[in-house]
Amino acid sequence: MADAPVNRTADPADLLAVAVAEARAGLAEGGVPIGAALFGPDGRLWGSGRNRRVQDDDASTHAETAAFRAAGRRAGYRGTTMVTTLSPCWYCSGLVRQFGISRVVIGEARTFSGGHDWLAEHGVEIVLVDDAECAELMTAFVAARPELWFEDIGQEPR
Amino acid sequence: MADAPVNRTADPADLLAVAVAEARAGLAEGGVPIGAALFGPDGRLWGSGRNRRVQDDDASTHAETAAFRAAGRRAGYRGTTMVTTLSPCWYCSGLVRQFGISRVVIGEARTFSGGHDWLAEHGVEIVLVDDAECAELMTAFVAARPELWFEDIGQEPR
Repeated sequence: MADAPVNRTADPADLLAVAVAEARAGLAEGGVPIGAALFGPDGRLWGSGRNRRVQDDDASTHAETAAFRAAGRRAGYRGTTMVTTLSPCWYCSGLVRQFGISRVVIGEARTFSGGHDWLAEHGVEIVLVDDAECAELMTAFVAARPELWFEDIGQEPR
Repeated sequence: MADAPVNRTADPADLLAVAVAEARAGLAEGGVPIGAALFGPDGRLWGSGRNRRVQDDDASTHAETAAFRAAGRRAGYRGTTMVTTLSPCWYCSGLVRQFGISRVVIGEARTFSGGHDWLAEHGVEIVLVDDAECAELMTAFVAARPELWFEDIGQEPR
């Protein structure tokens, strides 16, 4: 694991599709539609998940932390790729930095921009797909449920 | 909540005792002995928790995220105090920054120093107690279970 490089054989759009499916499942459940997935250095899926604030009344489970949990206990994260439909907030950016996740593939950063520039400064490879479907999902959700969105990022509603 | 100040009537050592009790419970369960608690602007306990990597095979539940989850869904965190037995790692520091937790009371930062200086730069009030009991708990744990400790912070064992 120590020297495992990031596996780049998969198209980022294909990795993103796993996260988008999680986001859509969250939307169907009445939740915050953000999904994520963690892929190992060999390109295999380690785990995926979605924001569970509404579903579990759980403020601590963002999409990235759900995917990280679903990946199970691991000795290291070098060479892994975290894929998320939305730019990771500071909480999820901190997760990426602490555990040494090598690469983050981001669906969109139009509706919210978290800590991905900070991660890039600290050596994390950032791939910003700027995917229209991801942006539409979040734009529609923020318009429909602003109080839930601002609760999810810990901000006063505007 | 918007203008709620931090409640400073309680001695930080008394707040820390809640986190230490969580850490000791975790140790008794065979887990990573780190505990945390989140107190509201009025000084009341919102929730407490401990690292659950071993207990639940859950890499995503650090003490601070457990306390945050136990506090339930909240519209805002201004005026709150997060108390933790150990300097918060980047993951937990990101949690504090994202949700605008106002103050962090830290048992010790001798065995591990995470993102608390970064939080201070971003306006979070940091109270470093430098508690001998907290330091002894972690020193003994790291010596006894180094592989578990390094797994918990995502580092290769040294």
